[in-house]
Amino acid sequence: MADRFVEELGDALPAGALVTDPDVLQTYRYDRTEWIEPGTPLAAAFPTTTEQVATAVRVAAAHRVPIVPRGAGSSLCGGSSAIDGCLVLCLERMDRIVEIDAVDQMAVLEPGVINADISLATADAGLWYPPDPASKTFCSIGGNVATNAGGLCCVKYGVTRDHVLGLEVVMADGTVIETGRRTIKGVAGLDLTQLLIGSEGTLGIVTKVRVRLTPLPEGAATMVAVFPTLGAAGVAVADLVASGLQLSLVELVDRTTLLAVDDWRNLGLDRDAAALLLVQSDSPVPLRGTEVARAAELCDRAGATYTAATDDADEAEMLLQARRLAIPALERLGDTLLDDVAVPRSRIPDLVGRTEDIAAARDVTIGTFGHAGDGNMHPTIVLPRGDQDALVRGKAAFNDILEVALDLGGTITGEHGIGIVKQPFLEREIGAGSLAVQRSIKRALDPHDLLNPGKWL
Amino acid sequence: MADRFVEELGDALPAGALVTDPDVLQTYRYDRTEWIEPGTPLAAAFPTTTEQVATAVRVAAAHRVPIVPRGAGSSLCGGSSAIDGCLVLCLERMDRIVEIDAVDQMAVLEPGVINADISLATADAGLWYPPDPASKTFCSIGGNVATNAGGLCCVKYGVTRDHVLGLEVVMADGTVIETGRRTIKGVAGLDLTQLLIGSEGTLGIVTKVRVRLTPLPEGAATMVAVFPTLGAAGVAVADLVASGLQLSLVELVDRTTLLAVDDWRNLGLDRDAAALLLVQSDSPVPLRGTEVARAAELCDRAGATYTAATDDADEAEMLLQARRLAIPALERLGDTLLDDVAVPRSRIPDLVGRTEDIAAARDVTIGTFGHAGDGNMHPTIVLPRGDQDALVRGKAAFNDILEVALDLGGTITGEHGIGIVKQPFLEREIGAGSLAVQRSIKRALDPHDLLNPGKWL
Repeated sequence: MADRFVEELGDALPAGALVTDPDVLQTYRYDRTEWIEPGTPLAAAFPTTTEQVATAVRVAAAHRVPIVPRGAGSSLCGGSSAIDGCLVLCLERMDRIVEIDAVDQMAVLEPGVINADISLATADAGLWYPPDPASKTFCSIGGNVATNAGGLCCVKYGVTRDHVLGLEVVMADGTVIETGRRTIKGVAGLDLTQLLIGSEGTLGIVTKVRVRLTPLPEGAATMVAVFPTLGAAGVAVADLVASGLQLSLVELVDRTTLLAVDDWRNLGLDRDAAALLLVQSDSPVPLRGTEVARAAELCDRAGATYTAATDDADEAEMLLQARRLAIPALERLGDTLLDDVAVPRSRIPDLVGRTEDIAAARDVTIGTFGHAGDGNMHPTIVLPRGDQDALVRGKAAFNDILEVALDLGGTITGEHGIGIVKQPFLEREIGAGSLAVQRSIKRALDPHDLLNPGKWL
Repeated sequence: MADRFVEELGDALPAGALVTDPDVLQTYRYDRTEWIEPGTPLAAAFPTTTEQVATAVRVAAAHRVPIVPRGAGSSLCGGSSAIDGCLVLCLERMDRIVEIDAVDQMAVLEPGVINADISLATADAGLWYPPDPASKTFCSIGGNVATNAGGLCCVKYGVTRDHVLGLEVVMADGTVIETGRRTIKGVAGLDLTQLLIGSEGTLGIVTKVRVRLTPLPEGAATMVAVFPTLGAAGVAVADLVASGLQLSLVELVDRTTLLAVDDWRNLGLDRDAAALLLVQSDSPVPLRGTEVARAAELCDRAGATYTAATDDADEAEMLLQARRLAIPALERLGDTLLDDVAVPRSRIPDLVGRTEDIAAARDVTIGTFGHAGDGNMHPTIVLPRGDQDALVRGKAAFNDILEVALDLGGTITGEHGIGIVKQPFLEREIGAGSLAVQRSIKRALDPHDLLNPGKWL
């Protein structure tokens, strides 16, 4: 049966578009979530056109073979991890920028286009695509849509959802639909675009993405503030949010993270600091200078022991190092479990403080950093490599953090998605009634549960 | 059967919450779409709690009585027009502001809260709720959610969808669910909030709305530009969009509309102008002055014959009169059919020009004004009162405008919804495949088609 499926699909696709070589499949079993054990796929398909995606879906549906869609495989929650007996539907060869419309400020992209490549391609037209996940140099727009990806500038510019105007989608029965529009506003029928964004590949396979483009800002002003306590940093975040300043970056780095960065790169960071707050404004001159100066004032008033600001792009990159290097610096120290929770912005100090308590209670190292201006933090558990006991404690700490986020009125995922690893917590957050409604939509659109089964649902 | 339904629902609701008096029902048959003939309801319910809404839905579902949800009845496309034998479920008595959280900048509202009352209630906390439909003093937030309402400031701040964090909803079987979150970001499960926004009361009855609040800007700078041709005004709009200026209002008023306003109020407007462009920036000082000056430069370069700017709030209101008074000024001249189309922003001159051609071909007066910065315009057909022949020509012109919008790559509705009047055009815009997917979602959530039947679907 599996053999017949592979044979039929191989015949239906062009030569080289279906792979069954176990060594290659091994690569495509995994995404970036290294601490779960994915299943073994029957095959991986590498379509280059929408019609080939539709063919793959139709053949898989006829054989009731589940499909795991995959972009760049950068999921941190098992969203694109393979399951046993599945077809991995890999969109990485569909990586063309189909259209750039500089006049109406939009672009049409295939799902495999790398996030950072969009802004590179549109820069000559004075435009960019704002959402900027930390993984922007290796994650793809299809996965960004699947997880409603965020990033550093989203505190000002909003997340993926705010920049996608429409989609081309292959549904579970192989039909191809278009959603959305070429206009900024519109309310013609149900907004399937918005429903599909964040659905983690469970409702359809995205084969084209129409995004809004935004006029490029002309530089930025940058500020760093050092805080002696997390509470003081939290007050500063709350004051910055309340100030109405249009900041384009408000990132927090805790002591564990900044020590990890400083140990690695000797940046001369204040090793007694409890937290760093990094702030940027890309407003036009002279406003950005005013905004960053006002932000520094608010940080001073909240108890910062030191602030420094710059208009220079290279100096700014130096200041931002403590944030940019957070993940690799922590990864140097051991195996990492990177979490992703969001809380109402006033609860950032509670989230960071209680995460420190969890680290102590579970005897693990946790570095916390993230998008404080959005209330979205990434507590990252660092474990001695290959230590199975520590892994058990680490997983417990990971779940403790989810509990704390819910307890603080927050969410178990701000921008990474549910995938496999947070599935047991979903009903806790959204409630049985809401989950039942979601499942009825899933059944209506994918009655045989073929699209990314076992993920959020 | 109908009698038994009314009796049972009357018994289940508090005294006074169910009305069958034909005189009262006559009022609740109509919304603001005066040129369609609504049906006659069995009764109108006026719940004051979510539980009463759920009760009404359950009893109606048991008797298979269709429900027409109604907020303030300000729909311009028949979205809340009654149908024969329905229950009008009127949310106007659910008008409490349940919670204002100044720290985390959000509010919880019952659906009957009037749009403008939100910002009045939050002003003391230095916050506001941006989306500002022209009807903001008499439309309610429940209807805003149902239609994803826009407004004048949406060119900078986005539409309803961008400001709603979560909902409480009574589903078609009477179950109550909560959607969304208390955080700015989140991607836990399908985004039911986004699916429900713009669904025009066909998927559930919204009983609470959690909105984001935004720090109040400190005043604004305002500019008016006069253009000798629509083409020149269109170039100015395109240049303003491309400039990256963060303008908080970019409104266009055509000659027919400005003559109607000037005839009424003698504002001394330039009666030879083809169009006025009104621009505002609410950026902090000094940026807003710079932005408006730059906008005036761009208008001059595009061929404006006159520009004037002011920082004074009263003078600004004078300049904005030509836009604020557009609808009442046109309504003075006869019966009106107010359309709502959006096109890619570069196509505004084509839309306005071709609308003038339609006015000539159909021998009707059409005044066009609207949110040029978003590409969303409101061509308004003015007909001699009670002239049935003219009404036939007017309806034809209304449909012609929809055809032009589709032809220009646009949408048949930017912010008012499909309702009854645009239903025949929906499939043309979104395609049969997309409509089929939408219908399957509707069937999954409302299998007996009880919620606002005959509207967009």
